Amino acid sequence: MNPVLVEAYRGKAVESAHRGALAVVDADGDVVLALGDTQRPIFPRSAVKVLQALPLLASGAAAALQLTDEELALACASHNGEPAHVATAAGMLAKAGVDMRVLECGAHWPYREAFQREMAARGQTPSALHNNCSGKHAGFICLACRMAGDQPLFDYAKGYVKAEHPVMREVTHALQTATGWDLSTAPQGIDGCSIPTFGIPLQHLARAFARVGTGVGLSDGHARAGQRLRQAVAKAPFMVGGTDRFDTRVMQRLGERVFCKVGAEGVYCAALPGRGLGVALKIDDGNNARAAEVVMAALIEAYVTLDDGEADWMRALSNVCLRNWNGIAVGALQASAELRRAATPLSA
Amino acid sequence: MNPVLVEAYRGKAVESAHRGALAVVDADGDVVLALGDTQRPIFPRSAVKVLQALPLLASGAAAALQLTDEELALACASHNGEPAHVATAAGMLAKAGVDMRVLECGAHWPYREAFQREMAARGQTPSALHNNCSGKHAGFICLACRMAGDQPLFDYAKGYVKAEHPVMREVTHALQTATGWDLSTAPQGIDGCSIPTFGIPLQHLARAFARVGTGVGLSDGHARAGQRLRQAVAKAPFMVGGTDRFDTRVMQRLGERVFCKVGAEGVYCAALPGRGLGVALKIDDGNNARAAEVVMAALIEAYVTLDDGEADWMRALSNVCLRNWNGIAVGALQASAELRRAATPLSA
Repeated sequence: MNPVLVEAYRGKAVESAHRGALAVVDADGDVVLALGDTQRPIFPRSAVKVLQALPLLASGAAAALQLTDEELALACASHNGEPAHVATAAGMLAKAGVDMRVLECGAHWPYREAFQREMAARGQTPSALHNNCSGKHAGFICLACRMAGDQPLFDYAKGYVKAEHPVMREVTHALQTATGWDLSTAPQGIDGCSIPTFGIPLQHLARAFARVGTGVGLSDGHARAGQRLRQAVAKAPFMVGGTDRFDTRVMQRLGERVFCKVGAEGVYCAALPGRGLGVALKIDDGNNARAAEVVMAALIEAYVTLDDGEADWMRALSNVCLRNWNGIAVGALQASAELRRAATPLSA
Repeated sequence: MNPVLVEAYRGKAVESAHRGALAVVDADGDVVLALGDTQRPIFPRSAVKVLQALPLLASGAAAALQLTDEELALACASHNGEPAHVATAAGMLAKAGVDMRVLECGAHWPYREAFQREMAARGQTPSALHNNCSGKHAGFICLACRMAGDQPLFDYAKGYVKAEHPVMREVTHALQTATGWDLSTAPQGIDGCSIPTFGIPLQHLARAFARVGTGVGLSDGHARAGQRLRQAVAKAPFMVGGTDRFDTRVMQRLGERVFCKVGAEGVYCAALPGRGLGVALKIDDGNNARAAEVVMAALIEAYVTLDDGEADWMRALSNVCLRNWNGIAVGALQASAELRRAATPLSA
């Protein structure tokens, strides 16, 4: 039974609670903190986009196409589908010599309601470029451009979301080597954007992120790729999420000290290079916005060196005031006492 | 520890799960089924709007203002803020001789994104009439109209959302007598629409709904009021929710055999008059759309007499296919085996 990690208060009573598991490990896989079942394979979903983007760099595709910080950050993103995200994804495809017709991720309205309303007010409807994964897919297409040789890219890329396509095999291989987990026998599902997702234990995911933060345990090519991607996101954090998004806000504030990334169904992963740590967590019930983010904020408070202003700022993300439609404070989201007790700072 | 009631599959693996508690009782309070902790007070939120509307009928206000089925159903609703809901709420206020300036529920965009986009495309912004609780509040105002005597209604109604206002005292008294739970010592919070919400155990909530379904254990006035409200919702189920909403769909299909009502944070209550039962459930993590609804569907399958077509139709609500942005079936939401085992039909 996984412990309660986040409690939602209404008045003085706990109204709802979120259980989950988490692992904080170093690049050798030594466990700094484990709560709940960290051995059960979980689907990491979009939290591992940075690992799936390693071949984009390691293959030389990013250099050949002169991808910018913004474009590399978008390759790791679950973005809001704001105009800058859409334009950047389109620009990546243009560098590869194709357009959005090559994308196989499907279209959806931006998750943030305000952006849906803005688009609707302009008479727009969403395309595959608005899909929160369009940057990852554009990265796959840039990789495909490198791998296609003399073949026309539209032909070569066709079916790139399938597990057996050479592009996806390369992406899956990077995920396997970074996590050290045999994906050929792992539980397998289809992700929201139609690529395969594999069940991987939290401890292995956390170690992969410690590796991305330190380079330890990765090939030279993947180590350089991980560093380059982290730096790109730190320089262009808007691209990895967007307006009001947790990942964007945290990395705008803390820069290269944190690389964190949300995944669907309550998953979060992070590299905390300062202490060479990797983090992976999963909320049992799949809640992202009010559970996984609160846990990640509490872990950043515990494991990243922060000044007082930064610590106060993070605390507002792990202890969130809830207001009703009249703006009246009615409750709070809080990291649980059990989580706070367990996640004591390393220096304490 | 509450049991798992709903599992979310991706491929063949359980990706996420929802725990919770539920009670099915008769009007005498005899327990037909209890899973998890049904003694702990939980905030029922909007699930008890029908109980909060009993004074609207019992006071004679509804008759004096000649409220229609649509208006009575809206008084029990958490609606979509669609044009018909907004117009009906405005009509109730007009019958009381006031307008939306009297409402103290606050404004919010409709929860359903499609309706937000439609409004944005028309250049509209939401008012208090769009608040999902506007019908309940309009009902409070109609009750206030009856109670105000010679005082101007705008003056009399001012502060009606506060616990100490005569209108809210009347509403809270109805809630207390129906549930048989002492609200003066119960945990108290402020609801999304600013009225008080009280912590009440699931067993007491379930008994209150058995009483509303049968009239047993209620005063004559409240018994008649409960029957009238159930009939109104059965005749105008669109008003209680709206397009594609679970409550609306179920009552459109099953009529007076079910009165079910969602509440925020994973709460559901129902009256199943055929067998004189009441139902109350709460999902620990607060998830409504994919957890509380699935549990309620499974309970309706178990405790309501359905023909084969109805049973198949309900099964699609308790065993829901999940599709991704390309329309590919990627998983399912399912009532857990533990829930299915426990909720065996009474006739079995």
